[in-house]
Amino acid sequence: MPPHPLDLELPKHVDTALAGYLADRRALGERMEGNFTGAVDALADFVLGGGKRIRPTFAWWGWRAAGGDPDDELAGAVLTAVSSLELIQACALVHDDLMDASETRRGRPTVHVRFARDHRERGWLGAPERFGLAAAVLIGDVALAWADDMLFAAGLPTDALQRLSLPWRDMRTEMLAGQYLDVLTQARGDASPDAALRIDRLKTAAYTVERPLHMGAAIGAGSPELVAGLRSFGADIGVAFQLRDDLLGVFGDPAVTGKPAGDDLREGKRTLLVALGMEYGADVLHDALGRPDLDEATVAVARDQLERVGAVAAVEERIGELTESALRALDRAPVAEPAADRLAELAISATKRTY
Amino acid sequence: MPPHPLDLELPKHVDTALAGYLADRRALGERMEGNFTGAVDALADFVLGGGKRIRPTFAWWGWRAAGGDPDDELAGAVLTAVSSLELIQACALVHDDLMDASETRRGRPTVHVRFARDHRERGWLGAPERFGLAAAVLIGDVALAWADDMLFAAGLPTDALQRLSLPWRDMRTEMLAGQYLDVLTQARGDASPDAALRIDRLKTAAYTVERPLHMGAAIGAGSPELVAGLRSFGADIGVAFQLRDDLLGVFGDPAVTGKPAGDDLREGKRTLLVALGMEYGADVLHDALGRPDLDEATVAVARDQLERVGAVAAVEERIGELTESALRALDRAPVAEPAADRLAELAISATKRTY
Repeated sequence: MPPHPLDLELPKHVDTALAGYLADRRALGERMEGNFTGAVDALADFVLGGGKRIRPTFAWWGWRAAGGDPDDELAGAVLTAVSSLELIQACALVHDDLMDASETRRGRPTVHVRFARDHRERGWLGAPERFGLAAAVLIGDVALAWADDMLFAAGLPTDALQRLSLPWRDMRTEMLAGQYLDVLTQARGDASPDAALRIDRLKTAAYTVERPLHMGAAIGAGSPELVAGLRSFGADIGVAFQLRDDLLGVFGDPAVTGKPAGDDLREGKRTLLVALGMEYGADVLHDALGRPDLDEATVAVARDQLERVGAVAAVEERIGELTESALRALDRAPVAEPAADRLAELAISATKRTY
Repeated sequence: MPPHPLDLELPKHVDTALAGYLADRRALGERMEGNFTGAVDALADFVLGGGKRIRPTFAWWGWRAAGGDPDDELAGAVLTAVSSLELIQACALVHDDLMDASETRRGRPTVHVRFARDHRERGWLGAPERFGLAAAVLIGDVALAWADDMLFAAGLPTDALQRLSLPWRDMRTEMLAGQYLDVLTQARGDASPDAALRIDRLKTAAYTVERPLHMGAAIGAGSPELVAGLRSFGADIGVAFQLRDDLLGVFGDPAVTGKPAGDDLREGKRTLLVALGMEYGADVLHDALGRPDLDEATVAVARDQLERVGAVAAVEERIGELTESALRALDRAPVAEPAADRLAELAISATKRTY
């Protein structure tokens, strides 16, 4: 059987759902207060300006795993519901960029930087940075509130909404708890592998893979066995996915990752790779980490040390183990086809070596 | 008939509902990540540390206006649902204090100041202010997400949740649009009476009175006539309420308001009173507004000018008109007793002269 068009072009359909929803909300917002459209447009730019739609994709396949049929009249509502995850992600990123004082995202100015620049260009009153901060806080809040609105108004039957409420609730809290732990861990200077893994479990595994799958399965009234199997798969593959990302952040080809080589080192990210590297004696990291002006030569030394002390091998081994245990959990779970095949593909493609 | 205990001690019952919900969420958060409890405790301190519970009170009386019976088995669920409004307010205030760089609220350090102080005292890494910013952003986000969770899990029947979804959706957006307009208006230096009134309509009238009443009436399946009447009442009384607050911010007795005399002038608030004062020629305002070191003598001059140019009289007149039109709307609406009497009382007590 050829793949269903919805399965095949899911990100495109997610974009369409988001664009439609945001246009509706813009019209509603404009009736409330014309000036508010400046904030809505910035949010729409951000949401529609890129992103791999990973969370909606996993949520969709969670629904398909529970037997959800893309030809069912419910499919449009499911698509809208899973697309709302991108609004949560917009809140997370806009607020994260503000907290990290990041200047750019996806090659464009971050929201707080853009509003500060507008303020400066117009010669408005007060400090431009303070205006940028306020706009980013409020636009992130709007995204978070609208995520709930979009989910609730997606057109799902009330029993599906009821089943969804638990994973939806826990996912949002896990995301925020993960962000908080990340901030706290950095402040405390906790460079332990354990701290890195705990952040990965909350921020990436739970929020990005496990709970979206759980949500999808909940919409489709999946059995407890299915939910448990998908969550186990998602928890493991989510961490593996983050560990692969960590390796790419140091060893990735700039032509593929779109970021300068070794950028994670410059940003001072406390990944499992870095934590193990430090523990195993990759001493250059103590100096290199978090230095924005880190040169290519030192990045090369850091890479060499990370390889030599065995940190890379340890992370690769962990990715391998997590991917295997994830695939075993998937195999044991009562997953409807073609979701089982597709989830296995997603697991492998997201965790395989690409450098 | 003597007043029902729930009606009589509503703020106390709201506090109990919030304390119970936050204790549950703390336990859940602790299982996710032990370190997260620091954030949850700060939120609980904030939410349970004061506040007049105005929004839950109006929402409760909106439900009673639609015939809701405090002896009904649904009353507990309604109480929990209306209490969730305090979590939205916690998000609004924590984020507002951050945006305004306010140092204290209710005589205690604001959330961002408290976390920056903790960071400094512990000698943690990075800038204390940046840590305080991150904590305040995330704690506000947690409050906003949990408001939805608390509402959804309150135990209301699904048809009530469905009816609620529209006022709930619009209220959150109106609040955020009002905050955004406020920030934008200040940046643009728009000191017009029109701008002040538009902010009042969104931030106070819609968010504080009109939509909470709408929500309560929606829970109780109130008729379109009731909803329209309560909204009209709420929109007018909400603006009147804000205008009274503006007068108190300049003319209020510190012993009653708990704030230094003329504090609104020091903070540079662009109220209708101030906007009309400037329009009518209270020239001292140009110098006095937004000066943190403003002395008592200049406050006295500003008061005198505001009286003399007729700004105070104009605001008083507006309060009178709004209160009258609100009471007329209430009178025409099919409001069940004792809600009609109680809402009229709330309207009068919130807008009467107290200086």
